[in-house]
Amino acid sequence: MQLIDLVGYIAATLTTAAFLPQVLKVWRSKSTKDLALPTLLSFIAGVSMWLVYGLLVHSTPIIMANAVTLVLNLVILRFKLKYG
Amino acid sequence: MQLIDLVGYIAATLTTAAFLPQVLKVWRSKSTKDLALPTLLSFIAGVSMWLVYGLLVHSTPIIMANAVTLVLNLVILRFKLKYG
Repeated sequence: MQLIDLVGYIAATLTTAAFLPQVLKVWRSKSTKDLALPTLLSFIAGVSMWLVYGLLVHSTPIIMANAVTLVLNLVILRFKLKYG
Repeated sequence: MQLIDLVGYIAATLTTAAFLPQVLKVWRSKSTKDLALPTLLSFIAGVSMWLVYGLLVHSTPIIMANAVTLVLNLVILRFKLKYG
């Protein structure tokens, strides 16, 4: 694997896995008041576009990373809409 | 501009600008308890790696988007470390 690819995979893994602790936190605390709703909405819209981008360029890493990030952020959004 | 590039630019703008409302929210409320620290740390590490990736592949859009995302998330981290 090229160094550039390795850096990209590490970057994608870190920015994707990052949202797991946030899901667990809001799931346990049932508190989301400090999370900005516009941030969640804009981020989810953007990640959805990255997913489309990945499909257009046929990039499995971009598709995989953004699909997981999208699901995790949709879960966070679900909690935000529930708990305010 | 190609459709693929346009989708990429829209995606990058949305996922980057997304963090501005979160910065404003914590700046005004001085409350960050619902934000998961491991999420911030992992996301900042990942975005830093995307910045390195952008430098390695000489991609100005990747460099720009991740530099702005990094700065905004460092501001959020600063508030998180201050307010807990």
